Amino acid sequence: MTAVAAAKDRETASGPRLQSGVEETAADRIRKEGRLLSPAELEQTLRTAGFDRYHIHHPFHKLMNAGELTRAQMQAWALNRYCYQAAIPKKDAIILSRSEDPEFRREWRKRIVDHDGGDGEEKDGGIKRWLKLAEGLGLDTDMVKSRKYALPATRFAVEAYVDLVSQSSLLVAVASSLTELFSPVAIGERVPAMLARYDYITEDTLAYFKPRLHQAPRDAEHALHLVTLWADTPDRQADAVDALLAKCDILWAMLDALHFAYVEPGLIAPGAFRPAATE
Amino acid sequence: MTAVAAAKDRETASGPRLQSGVEETAADRIRKEGRLLSPAELEQTLRTAGFDRYHIHHPFHKLMNAGELTRAQMQAWALNRYCYQAAIPKKDAIILSRSEDPEFRREWRKRIVDHDGGDGEEKDGGIKRWLKLAEGLGLDTDMVKSRKYALPATRFAVEAYVDLVSQSSLLVAVASSLTELFSPVAIGERVPAMLARYDYITEDTLAYFKPRLHQAPRDAEHALHLVTLWADTPDRQADAVDALLAKCDILWAMLDALHFAYVEPGLIAPGAFRPAATE
Repeated sequence: MTAVAAAKDRETASGPRLQSGVEETAADRIRKEGRLLSPAELEQTLRTAGFDRYHIHHPFHKLMNAGELTRAQMQAWALNRYCYQAAIPKKDAIILSRSEDPEFRREWRKRIVDHDGGDGEEKDGGIKRWLKLAEGLGLDTDMVKSRKYALPATRFAVEAYVDLVSQSSLLVAVASSLTELFSPVAIGERVPAMLARYDYITEDTLAYFKPRLHQAPRDAEHALHLVTLWADTPDRQADAVDALLAKCDILWAMLDALHFAYVEPGLIAPGAFRPAATE
Repeated sequence: MTAVAAAKDRETASGPRLQSGVEETAADRIRKEGRLLSPAELEQTLRTAGFDRYHIHHPFHKLMNAGELTRAQMQAWALNRYCYQAAIPKKDAIILSRSEDPEFRREWRKRIVDHDGGDGEEKDGGIKRWLKLAEGLGLDTDMVKSRKYALPATRFAVEAYVDLVSQSSLLVAVASSLTELFSPVAIGERVPAMLARYDYITEDTLAYFKPRLHQAPRDAEHALHLVTLWADTPDRQADAVDALLAKCDILWAMLDALHFAYVEPGLIAPGAFRPAATE
């Protein structure tokens, strides 16, 4: 079985298992087979293995899209996710700082502009738009910006992302951004679902998501091109797949923590945001 | 109300709350009052605020001590907790590397010996003893040592601990170790409960815990002495309390993740340890 076929096989969730109830990943298989994948095969492996673990499949997002979250649960989501949004330009600045190539830096710099804001159309930037979303859900923006009341597990996951891009190879740092391959699918599901199912959510509140629909594909295409170019040994190809899976783990862990604290069993970590009793 | 009284008041879990349903911490109160606590007051604040958030109160530990965890859940605990055990000497080495004082380093070095092993009584060291525990619970030690099948949230929490001691002041790094003030209480509850309520657990399996009963108080006394000496402004005292609370958050988040994945709702993150169906 080729690595690509094996990665596809994994989608069934009944893929090969190690003796102690743990699954082999697509990266494990590339390392084991030791064969260099073609750029197209690597791309397909990244797409399949990454989408399989993308947080679009998390029960918290399923509840959100089904209109089944309370306003308080939506607040908890926006407040925690802010920590992630706020860290994105920092992690991108780290990536800039690690490249020797002005052309790469010029292209990657667009991501910082998108989030921190710039001139013209992108004046506000994603972070300001996310705060608008939080405010639209009834949160105090200073409280959100302090990040103090996020779940500790959220902060740890975000810190792990910053550590990953700081401490690994530039290939790994770039490959970890490839979850953006899937984000238009997530946004395409989420925005209409939110507008239809939560009467207090307006298009204006969701202004964050609209520019992401063209920014994310542009960024993902650039990153994918570099990853398939730079990953020129089986080990480096496996590293790239591992990086994408690690990023999926980060996004997934953020939703696990939200679900645990605010859905089921509903045990909020000491010191974290507690929705007002009136919500 | 003094900060100490306020910290005690917080124990009732009906302490002062900020407008958006978030609690003021003992560190917030020290900063707000701006009064330098005496060493005895600081010690009392650390003991009260730290014990209040110590993971001994987590539902997962309560289930464990009540004999209500399955062997598979105990395995998940041992496998995940190994990540923490394995990182301890690394974080202590970082602390060593950040001090200019040979006397401090000589004292702190004992912690590394305790975990990595040395001569005579401490030959094995805590890490080897933890692997014995994992093996006694039926796990493959190579799988445990790989750390690959731990929950991502466990790895992120452990990484946050290493980051904390790397990136903050030496005072904060030392203060974050003060959860050891409470560990003899936890061990004193856990060991007899485990021996009484899980027939597959023997004293030999639990060999990790016995030396901790004299190591932890020795280490905590040293750290507490330094923290009360070094924290010579209200801000530094608040930093020390924050450090202890941050460490409590780390330990708590590890149990949140275990509880979420293996108790309720039982959603195991993709790629993480899945107990064998026969357990």
